[in-house]
Amino acid sequence: MGHDAPLFYEDPVELVRGDGVWLEAADGTRYLDLYNNVPCVGHANPRVAAAIAEQAATLNVHSRYLHANVVDYTERLVGLHHDGIESVILACSGSEATEMALTMARSLTGKKGVICTDATYHGNTSLVSKLTGLPVGTDRDGVRSISTPQMYRPLANGLTEAELCQRYLDQLAATIAQFEADGLGFAGIMLCSILANEGLPTAPGGWFTEATEMVRDAGGFVIADEVQAGFARSGNWWGYDTSGFTPDIVCMGKPMGNGLPVSGMAASHDMITSFRGKQRYFNTFAASPLQAAAGMAVIDEITDRDLVASVASVGAALKTSLLALQASQARMGDVRGHGLFIGIDWVVPGTNEPDVDGAAAMVEALKARCMLLGKAGQHGNVLKIRPPLVFQQDHAD
Amino acid sequence: MGHDAPLFYEDPVELVRGDGVWLEAADGTRYLDLYNNVPCVGHANPRVAAAIAEQAATLNVHSRYLHANVVDYTERLVGLHHDGIESVILACSGSEATEMALTMARSLTGKKGVICTDATYHGNTSLVSKLTGLPVGTDRDGVRSISTPQMYRPLANGLTEAELCQRYLDQLAATIAQFEADGLGFAGIMLCSILANEGLPTAPGGWFTEATEMVRDAGGFVIADEVQAGFARSGNWWGYDTSGFTPDIVCMGKPMGNGLPVSGMAASHDMITSFRGKQRYFNTFAASPLQAAAGMAVIDEITDRDLVASVASVGAALKTSLLALQASQARMGDVRGHGLFIGIDWVVPGTNEPDVDGAAAMVEALKARCMLLGKAGQHGNVLKIRPPLVFQQDHAD
Repeated sequence: MGHDAPLFYEDPVELVRGDGVWLEAADGTRYLDLYNNVPCVGHANPRVAAAIAEQAATLNVHSRYLHANVVDYTERLVGLHHDGIESVILACSGSEATEMALTMARSLTGKKGVICTDATYHGNTSLVSKLTGLPVGTDRDGVRSISTPQMYRPLANGLTEAELCQRYLDQLAATIAQFEADGLGFAGIMLCSILANEGLPTAPGGWFTEATEMVRDAGGFVIADEVQAGFARSGNWWGYDTSGFTPDIVCMGKPMGNGLPVSGMAASHDMITSFRGKQRYFNTFAASPLQAAAGMAVIDEITDRDLVASVASVGAALKTSLLALQASQARMGDVRGHGLFIGIDWVVPGTNEPDVDGAAAMVEALKARCMLLGKAGQHGNVLKIRPPLVFQQDHAD
Repeated sequence: MGHDAPLFYEDPVELVRGDGVWLEAADGTRYLDLYNNVPCVGHANPRVAAAIAEQAATLNVHSRYLHANVVDYTERLVGLHHDGIESVILACSGSEATEMALTMARSLTGKKGVICTDATYHGNTSLVSKLTGLPVGTDRDGVRSISTPQMYRPLANGLTEAELCQRYLDQLAATIAQFEADGLGFAGIMLCSILANEGLPTAPGGWFTEATEMVRDAGGFVIADEVQAGFARSGNWWGYDTSGFTPDIVCMGKPMGNGLPVSGMAASHDMITSFRGKQRYFNTFAASPLQAAAGMAVIDEITDRDLVASVASVGAALKTSLLALQASQARMGDVRGHGLFIGIDWVVPGTNEPDVDGAAAMVEALKARCMLLGKAGQHGNVLKIRPPLVFQQDHAD
């Protein structure tokens, strides 16, 4: 893995096995996993493990031969989306999906300008990493950012929610206009549907709907990054359902294969066909029978165990408990999020000033109490609670 | 998979299962697989399938916790390389590995100029695809190409092999010098160690050794793309052993997990540590226990079944048979390659003019005789014979 490979915790955890929402360390400690979104239907999920085992023992080849399960899987996958999402190109990592989405948006519009928020992360490739930590007002090879829309640390104080929303929308409009003025043109916006890396801020009401309409009116594509937001995480199948907008392009990843590398980029038939016509794209390991087997088992589990509803109710109850706790804990500046993705904005009491060290100490303290979680957000001070979707009320208790 | 997903054959093959070097179609036809390098230790290899099954049923998480098998696997993997390769960063796809390698070469040298051949393919990301089909004399954002070194269709006629080698080396020297003259500086060269996508041309003797020494003397890194060349394919563990050079950076992919997505980029400890210090890199699905389990089983199979020696001897015998056949088949312009990666340059009889349609017809004709192979090369006319490594003499017969 290389020296200096990034590890969690001052004293890293060595894991040996997992089961549902539990992780067992080499020293025998059993941790409640409040962190991992990839093993969405539970660590070592038996149905997914069996599907992988059977397919690995039968056949696993690339996608230039036909395989019935791959066709079935891709059809089922796009069927989970709104009607405009009709076709998907599978890949292995989320970065490959976001890379394809940006490339497609630029290719189909013939324009270069891409907008993201100023506190995001959409992947690790040379192209996609241009969107990482990009301050407002700077241009990175045709990528520019807007301020992350949020109620808790707003762009300006003293405004009504509607006025604040308009302020954020005005900034978006100006950014689009500047792309046109600079001759780059506007290709689209890429947004995590629930602003996960931004720290799950609550955007002013209506922002997602109005911002995405503005993008489309300007001829740009709306790209929803559902790598973290998707697959029931927010209490709906997709984060865009929760946030109230309709994307043209969707990127999926992390939970798709419960840990087996699978990702995908989906859009309308016309868009995908046109993209394929312009751009050679082949991915050796993608659209394989193994990916299809794992992916189908994940969808089966989410569906058969009714995890969308479960996430919504368990998540709502958890958030209610945390909001109650907030009343007596002044460091919990803001409790927010959707479904089983909840953020606690850890602050200096009496202010909304981020307390990064305090959040880090909480992560370590909870580890000592056998609970694994992490921190994220624009300032790195947001405790993120994001357990496998099979997390239940008794785990919360 | 999207409409217009690229498929092989006029009437694509629908596969249902595999076993060793055999693939079975939905219509019951059993094909001898002369094409697939990814399932290197055989389709549905029992040891790999069992390792994947066991690990999927036990634990599969990302690399920010420790896992003993991941450490063991990465140590074993780098131990298969020359002494200067000490540390590896795992990823999912070959493109992610080559992307990291280029980024690292540029980051550590602080220079931009990258050289590749004019008939190569190293991956599908925005950065790496700049190396695809790049004509000599053009600049693509700091990437420039040299003519593919080859004896069969040489850069100039009437030269001795040594003179031809020098001509190719002179072109490389001029390309490096031009990068310096243009103020871009020189970061390194990326080469498939056996020039696979170029059509496996035989380079003039000494070219690899002298070219890579020239690169290093000029301060650039030598990046070996072993995604196709590695893991015993050429009759040695690594293509660079076969071609006779010592890379600073190695990219690995396709066969690593026998079809499970695994790839890696390896170099010295110092280089990897320095790269990690400069660049955030995290890959959700990579360096996972599942990758380690599959990867370790593949190495075990290659080692325990002595596939390096087997590939060398079976491949040599196959090549000898094909060379004998060439005497009576004027369309077989050149038979070349290493180990179980053999190319047949299909030509208009009496010339070295590529016969692309003839090669395509041969691929279809061999399918009708229940053999799957493909074509590749600079002109798309090279039949490539590249079966799983477990291919034996009786399969060849």
